Amino acid sequence: MPTHDPATSHPAFLADTISRIRPPDPDAYAAAQAHQDQLTKPPGSMGQLEQLGCRLAAIAGVSPPPVPAPCAVVVCAGDHGVHAQGVSPWPQEVTVQMVANVVAGGAVVNTLARQVGARVTCVDVGVAQPLLPVPVAEDVELVSHRVADGTADFTEGPAMTRDQVADALVVGIETATRLIDDGVRMLATGDLGIGNTTTSAALIAAMTGADPAAVTGAGAGSPPPMVQHKIAVIKAALERHQPSPRDPLGVLAAVGGLEHAVLVGLILGGASRRIPVLLDGVIAGSAALVARAFAPDAVGYLIAGHRSAEPGARVAHDELGLAPLIDLGLCLGEGSGAVLAVPLAQAAARMLREVATFESAGVSGSTTEHD
Amino acid sequence: MPTHDPATSHPAFLADTISRIRPPDPDAYAAAQAHQDQLTKPPGSMGQLEQLGCRLAAIAGVSPPPVPAPCAVVVCAGDHGVHAQGVSPWPQEVTVQMVANVVAGGAVVNTLARQVGARVTCVDVGVAQPLLPVPVAEDVELVSHRVADGTADFTEGPAMTRDQVADALVVGIETATRLIDDGVRMLATGDLGIGNTTTSAALIAAMTGADPAAVTGAGAGSPPPMVQHKIAVIKAALERHQPSPRDPLGVLAAVGGLEHAVLVGLILGGASRRIPVLLDGVIAGSAALVARAFAPDAVGYLIAGHRSAEPGARVAHDELGLAPLIDLGLCLGEGSGAVLAVPLAQAAARMLREVATFESAGVSGSTTEHD
Repeated sequence: MPTHDPATSHPAFLADTISRIRPPDPDAYAAAQAHQDQLTKPPGSMGQLEQLGCRLAAIAGVSPPPVPAPCAVVVCAGDHGVHAQGVSPWPQEVTVQMVANVVAGGAVVNTLARQVGARVTCVDVGVAQPLLPVPVAEDVELVSHRVADGTADFTEGPAMTRDQVADALVVGIETATRLIDDGVRMLATGDLGIGNTTTSAALIAAMTGADPAAVTGAGAGSPPPMVQHKIAVIKAALERHQPSPRDPLGVLAAVGGLEHAVLVGLILGGASRRIPVLLDGVIAGSAALVARAFAPDAVGYLIAGHRSAEPGARVAHDELGLAPLIDLGLCLGEGSGAVLAVPLAQAAARMLREVATFESAGVSGSTTEHD
Repeated sequence: MPTHDPATSHPAFLADTISRIRPPDPDAYAAAQAHQDQLTKPPGSMGQLEQLGCRLAAIAGVSPPPVPAPCAVVVCAGDHGVHAQGVSPWPQEVTVQMVANVVAGGAVVNTLARQVGARVTCVDVGVAQPLLPVPVAEDVELVSHRVADGTADFTEGPAMTRDQVADALVVGIETATRLIDDGVRMLATGDLGIGNTTTSAALIAAMTGADPAAVTGAGAGSPPPMVQHKIAVIKAALERHQPSPRDPLGVLAAVGGLEHAVLVGLILGGASRRIPVLLDGVIAGSAALVARAFAPDAVGYLIAGHRSAEPGARVAHDELGLAPLIDLGLCLGEGSGAVLAVPLAQAAARMLREVATFESAGVSGSTTEHD
């Protein structure tokens, strides 16, 4: 397995998507940077939002960039066989119950999406139980692409078959493509899946070589002894499967989650269409590390929405070279931290489009410009 | 002057406003906290936004709190006599030019306000030159309450007379009152005034006793020698005036700015009506310290929108016990950092109003709840 060559192992559709991912456009970045310095503000005074505006120009390949709106948050839901090992204080049925809550419009991500004008698409890629019959809220879309009734317990064998992973990757790519064809101009990652911080920590450790103890946290409220147990479970699984970061599909099959695979596909699909992808927390960070192994240039299309309180999020961001926009101690998931960052990303592009220049507004320059 | 008794020295209108400022309601805070723990999310998983939601309940005196919308950003503009000392790389005429830019809708704050659905009110409280004749943009309000043609140079005498300070404070209170009567439910502070980071650093040093070197920064792009000169200018002024933090009106008169005094009035006016005030950066932080000296309970109505790159901002936040919502290295002013935080504050209240509870959504609880 470690010598597996990813270039020949991807299904054709995945390989085709990967082949269409180009690096963001450095000329558009440079043009945006030059324009930033003409806007009526001291150069650099909008800090990280100036770099983000330039990155959005590079992503779109044009300066000024279009405002990345509308945004759709894709809440991918799946269950985890490793839940049987007692890695979460929440019963597994909470996944299907929370899918119903999102579909009905009652979850945190729905409220935040309404606040920032984002759309919510909930993708059932493998919830263990049948979905509950609830009315779908007007501003929510529910999509069923069930690949399996949850993953297998990765302490006993691979979480998924390679075919299941490929299917879930295609779900992500196709979801991105469909939303973009429908006019969406920014994708935000969301997730639901009791046990998925354990899976994310395993993926981050597998992809980066980090010690599981350094990337495993309390998730949705695990007490300290349970966190220690999570770490032991992850260590044992990595020891058993020996997943190679050179084979990202194999890593997902060994210790990944169905929703993680969909998010990897979503990232690859967005990047292939030059659409920015706003990452939520640690689940998204782990998916981004896997996506990078498929297509290193995909990283140029990623925006870190927030710094999750989960320790693996920082490791993932550092590894990817991403600076999060928001850092408010959130650790909910669902896409909540990505959605909160939507107005910041849109503002970064909007500044480049709308703010007057020194010349157009007749504002005098700084004397230090002449130094 | 150090023995001046603020209680007997305020104009009647100011004293009346201060007398109406009550602490935020601890019962509403507790009710909101109890409600947070019923919402369909792990307790505490929305981090700082949960505390902010509770604070908004306490501010409004009811749980769940109303969503603080619409928001108006009040961009207070004034000039500074100390500019003559060479404390800024920008010519003083930039203040009046930037007022025209805001009025025409071309400044950064206008773009950000459009992004988040906030109103812009620009108050000329003392720009040195006559306003430029530009058309007022549809989504902007321009108000002229000119108290003076800029402040006097505080290295040579007091920046303002006590009567001028009182007039500017009343402008702020009346602006808050008028906007709230007009339906505004959150005020954001903004400012324009070449030289006003020097004034802000002087105010922060005067109010906290901090070393001017610890609270003085590059402002709108001062090179390091100019920052050293700013520090020396502030030290000399504080030595000369010996302003007492027990006499906030006297501190403003000695080393303050007209826009700072309006912002103090805005804070007091908002607090007296139980309306949250979202602070921008270091100018707002200095005004908040002065407002606290007038009315300690006003601090309970303040939300720190962002952590400015100016060093005085951190000192002010620490002194006020405020945790900023955004930290993106911004140092523009105009209210930009406050406006960017508007959706976060609105989301914090909205979660308490809209998110389903475990009971209403039929979601199972965590096993750790029973520990």
